Amino acid sequence: MANLKDLGEFGLINRLSRKFKHQASDTVLPLGDDCAVYSANASKNQLVSTDALVENIHFNLSTISPEQLGQKAIAVNLSDIAAMGGTPTRVLITLGISNKISTSFLDQLYKGVHKICTIHNVELFGGDTVSSPNSFFINITVIGETKRGKLFTRKGAKKGDLIFTTGTLGDSSLGLKIQSLKKWKCSSNSRKHLLEKHLNPIPRLKESQLLIRSTCKITSMIDISDGLAQDLQHICKQSGVGALIYEEKLPKSPAFTKVCSDNNLKPLPLILNGGEDYELLFTLPSDGVKNLYRQFEKAEALVTHIGEITASSNKVSLLKKNGKREILPQSSGFNHF
Amino acid sequence: MANLKDLGEFGLINRLSRKFKHQASDTVLPLGDDCAVYSANASKNQLVSTDALVENIHFNLSTISPEQLGQKAIAVNLSDIAAMGGTPTRVLITLGISNKISTSFLDQLYKGVHKICTIHNVELFGGDTVSSPNSFFINITVIGETKRGKLFTRKGAKKGDLIFTTGTLGDSSLGLKIQSLKKWKCSSNSRKHLLEKHLNPIPRLKESQLLIRSTCKITSMIDISDGLAQDLQHICKQSGVGALIYEEKLPKSPAFTKVCSDNNLKPLPLILNGGEDYELLFTLPSDGVKNLYRQFEKAEALVTHIGEITASSNKVSLLKKNGKREILPQSSGFNHF
Repeated sequence: MANLKDLGEFGLINRLSRKFKHQASDTVLPLGDDCAVYSANASKNQLVSTDALVENIHFNLSTISPEQLGQKAIAVNLSDIAAMGGTPTRVLITLGISNKISTSFLDQLYKGVHKICTIHNVELFGGDTVSSPNSFFINITVIGETKRGKLFTRKGAKKGDLIFTTGTLGDSSLGLKIQSLKKWKCSSNSRKHLLEKHLNPIPRLKESQLLIRSTCKITSMIDISDGLAQDLQHICKQSGVGALIYEEKLPKSPAFTKVCSDNNLKPLPLILNGGEDYELLFTLPSDGVKNLYRQFEKAEALVTHIGEITASSNKVSLLKKNGKREILPQSSGFNHF
Repeated sequence: MANLKDLGEFGLINRLSRKFKHQASDTVLPLGDDCAVYSANASKNQLVSTDALVENIHFNLSTISPEQLGQKAIAVNLSDIAAMGGTPTRVLITLGISNKISTSFLDQLYKGVHKICTIHNVELFGGDTVSSPNSFFINITVIGETKRGKLFTRKGAKKGDLIFTTGTLGDSSLGLKIQSLKKWKCSSNSRKHLLEKHLNPIPRLKESQLLIRSTCKITSMIDISDGLAQDLQHICKQSGVGALIYEEKLPKSPAFTKVCSDNNLKPLPLILNGGEDYELLFTLPSDGVKNLYRQFEKAEALVTHIGEITASSNKVSLLKKNGKREILPQSSGFNHF
């Protein structure tokens, strides 16, 4: 029998869910995307997603404050709603409380939760508090909605579509790196920017709403949580296409570029595989691009053309600065087993 | 600052959620009942609830099989839907996987999940798989629905209403007890019955549907997960009433009675505080009782009149067999901190 390490996260999910055939009559999109979707009525879709963060796997309590953790736990779930073009409405929170956790820690955690829920008009809608013998954990279920017929999914990218991302990439994983080591050449401003991107990611709900309301025909979308390479592979796999991205077009923040250069760090692995960017990655036909740029400029939001969809099924290639093409390895998911 | 032990589970939940004022316009019932409820459309309510089970807190892998655990994790969540008169439609499952967990363990766990989901027509609608350093955990979010205007809540019991419970009480906690000790006088049939009630609780969806479709005017309902005393206190608190229950009326299975008597065990603490019965506890005016009995008889389901609602706010009293009355202590929640 395959062991968990060999299966990887995606292999495991496929294995466990393959026998489940029942679909309710109002299911719009079953599990397998950023959210699963059902239509509670004729005008709205209900989006649902769940994500857990575990101490010493996803975060370290010596490097993130409880307030930041509360905010981030909600943010990464709201990002799943953003990836589908949705508006978040409700969250349910399960806390697994280990014996070193204090009341004041939980007060601070909920201060962070409250902050981000207030910004995005999200209702605290339930939860569970349980004891957890060793590690603190937090599981969030988020509910959101879109208008019927308005929904971004991973499936739908077509050959010739252009690939875009919001924001800049790699900041979060570089933030994680500089947090754990002290001997970095890094200005305090750069440090602040990179840590902020790692500890306090902003779910791209504004950009997502801009896209869902625009006349741009977005053909696929995902949020970059596991790294550009892997998340682009999800789009390719579900759409039955390939992708080519250009190294020189990948958007980098000035702080990221400077810290990589000052410390002899290769930027590419951080951008491609670092993860936790929580930017939106999406595709659209080239005739919509002018419109897209105009709308993002108006909204003062960053968007960058990074590549195009190709016919070479499931293959994500990188055109390097030196002119060479490289096929990026397929990932079986973030392998924490 | 209060510590977690002093606060208890309910105190903690109140403390953490009190600042959250935002309610979406379509919220029917905010957090604080077995499920929170919103109205996605004019004809249906959406019910949502979440519950986690943690290794060595809620279960011990040496005494429950992975298949039983999968089934039970879903069952206790479906019980929350039953408590509101709902029909479960979907579940999302988060697995916190420790390194001693194997692929075959997870296959068996999902065999149990699949079994109960198939029985109740529930769709697997998403989830997350994460690594958990020490203890295995499973978090379930369940979604269900009721017709608008058809909803049982903890609030609404009135002085003079009669109190009923489905099934028999105490079996599950006695099952837990006999599982952990070997020197019990207990026939194999009794053992089987009690273990089955502990390891494989049946969510009372059939009884709940019977009640929601009947003309009986159910004034309040809850499922007994933390023990009769505590869950009745929830009804009393939310309804602003008190309750009197009769020791001699509390429904016991023959196996429970025999094993308690053969082993010199007091049945009352198991019935009042044992928990995990997952029976329905509900109230209705006395003029609906004949109708209630007729319907339960027809459905071959057990229902027992165990007491009545009184005016003495928040106080749950027990009329003992010796004629004495005793006020049951208030609980601050299952205190696992």
